[in-house]
Amino acid sequence: MTLNRAWVLARRPEGAVRTSDFAYQEEAFAAPLLAEGEILVRTRIISCAPTIRNWLNPPERSYRGAIGIGEPIRGMAAVEVLESRHGQFSVGQWLTAVAPWQDYAVLRPDAAAVPVMAIEASVDPVDAMTLYSPNSLTAYFGLFTVGEPKSGMTLLVSGAAGSVGGMVCQMARIAGCRVIAVAGGQDKCRWLEEEGGADVAIDYRSSDLPAALKAASPDGINIFFDNVGGDILQAAVDRMAPHGRIVLCGQLAAYDSNEPAAGPQDMMKLVYGRIRMQGFVVGDYADDYASAITSIRRWEAEGRLRNRYDVRDGFRCIPNAFVDIFKGRNSGTLIVRI
Amino acid sequence: MTLNRAWVLARRPEGAVRTSDFAYQEEAFAAPLLAEGEILVRTRIISCAPTIRNWLNPPERSYRGAIGIGEPIRGMAAVEVLESRHGQFSVGQWLTAVAPWQDYAVLRPDAAAVPVMAIEASVDPVDAMTLYSPNSLTAYFGLFTVGEPKSGMTLLVSGAAGSVGGMVCQMARIAGCRVIAVAGGQDKCRWLEEEGGADVAIDYRSSDLPAALKAASPDGINIFFDNVGGDILQAAVDRMAPHGRIVLCGQLAAYDSNEPAAGPQDMMKLVYGRIRMQGFVVGDYADDYASAITSIRRWEAEGRLRNRYDVRDGFRCIPNAFVDIFKGRNSGTLIVRI
Repeated sequence: MTLNRAWVLARRPEGAVRTSDFAYQEEAFAAPLLAEGEILVRTRIISCAPTIRNWLNPPERSYRGAIGIGEPIRGMAAVEVLESRHGQFSVGQWLTAVAPWQDYAVLRPDAAAVPVMAIEASVDPVDAMTLYSPNSLTAYFGLFTVGEPKSGMTLLVSGAAGSVGGMVCQMARIAGCRVIAVAGGQDKCRWLEEEGGADVAIDYRSSDLPAALKAASPDGINIFFDNVGGDILQAAVDRMAPHGRIVLCGQLAAYDSNEPAAGPQDMMKLVYGRIRMQGFVVGDYADDYASAITSIRRWEAEGRLRNRYDVRDGFRCIPNAFVDIFKGRNSGTLIVRI
Repeated sequence: MTLNRAWVLARRPEGAVRTSDFAYQEEAFAAPLLAEGEILVRTRIISCAPTIRNWLNPPERSYRGAIGIGEPIRGMAAVEVLESRHGQFSVGQWLTAVAPWQDYAVLRPDAAAVPVMAIEASVDPVDAMTLYSPNSLTAYFGLFTVGEPKSGMTLLVSGAAGSVGGMVCQMARIAGCRVIAVAGGQDKCRWLEEEGGADVAIDYRSSDLPAALKAASPDGINIFFDNVGGDILQAAVDRMAPHGRIVLCGQLAAYDSNEPAAGPQDMMKLVYGRIRMQGFVVGDYADDYASAITSIRRWEAEGRLRNRYDVRDGFRCIPNAFVDIFKGRNSGTLIVRI
């Protein structure tokens, strides 16, 4: 008998997410009859992205489709097509898609909020889930389209040792920016300065952040790529140079709290500083993914962009891996091979 | 003996600004010897703009050059040139400039943060201080450059019966927007709906603002032109349509408090909504003032833009007039003829 294992939402997290918020389930798997436009997939790799935390909240705080109690968790995954009734996808192909945390699933690509995309045969699926993943694309479009970097600018990035942040550091350096990286822990900061593309890395756990930021940005900050929000956002607003841009990518600091992510304490600083704050969602740029990936490949081939990921193995470890993100226990993109 | 009267800052306001925060002074006036580049002017009309309130705060909360205790208040004014050692300005000419609240003053146009501009002889100085004033230009550039209105969009404006807000309503309607205006008091709301360009006016004093806003914007808000901040900003964020723009012009609700103007309570709404919030300062657009004024004139000539102002007379009434703005006792641009 083939089993279909699943991780479902046992209860909505109160504050910090815990492994006990998830429940393991298994049932006998019987291949379903597909409707036109559907594909049956086997989940091979899942990515533990912080944004999934938002979908564990009650509907009014999930922003995009809360996951119901008892429903499988979903997130970005590399999946293998087992059966297809969709003209674009064929058996044996690997795809990236938002899929449930379970072994087998039926997807309907044309109705997916996040584009389902084929992984080219020449690409390692691990690379597809890391270097060429939506996380890298998030860094790319947030930085280049919303942030508009120019050579000589000073860029600040929070969550700099994370999946998106690590890419932002390196891409901003490629764009000619001076990069200030904020991360939690001295090991991460050392790595960011030595290998990760940062000119200065600030450990927010052991620093007086406003003072450290002031010392690191004598001419102010032109672009702040914000993955974290909270105190770092407040400190950044105080250091923004006139006409600076704040790229709103995520607000990790608030995901694990019961409070929403508070905005700047003083909006007049945005008025007089002519500051632009802008939220974005990577899916809006799907038409330009291919050209972004071409750039990412070229930078990698030139040795200017390094892939950094943290890989775990086994279906059972998914909740542990997910919780580790919020404890800062990952080094780059955290994926789980099933 | 000629007197030079002045209103100076007696003390920094605690909370709501009061007339007793200002002190009247007079001294004998003796024409000074001008240095190269200076002009001696007589102040003829002053404009009571809310932004002056920020400069009464301590330096750390004034954003741009706090006024010192005992120093004259400064603000936008129409002034007459009495003597000139500046090649561009000649005796008898009237100018708009930031000038102190006193009868006579020496200005140095090339060092001015806000451009000093000649009022054409054919233009009534009252019109120059109202319809063609920096307030109208603020509405124009904030709306068209930051807000980017398109026909059919829904625009919300706070402080809609004020100098900037009143212009935004009318200009947004010219741009083809559906206009929702928020103002304080039923008289203002009636005027806004009947003559001021608003499709719907909401009296924030007598309404449940979130409910009224929801009813007035079934498809959400594409552009929010914010003069006020506070509760109206919170309510607007909840109603923004995807990819909406929030034009940060001012935060009047906070000017008279001892607290800074708080930002949105939930930044994730900006992320998932792809919302852009952008501060601006009209002086950045000085190179384009002439073409903006050409548009404003044309719209006025076509009967599509009405000038609305509230004029007071006499140097002594300036503090009263200024305080009236924060009580909502003005109808459009509030100016004082000296």
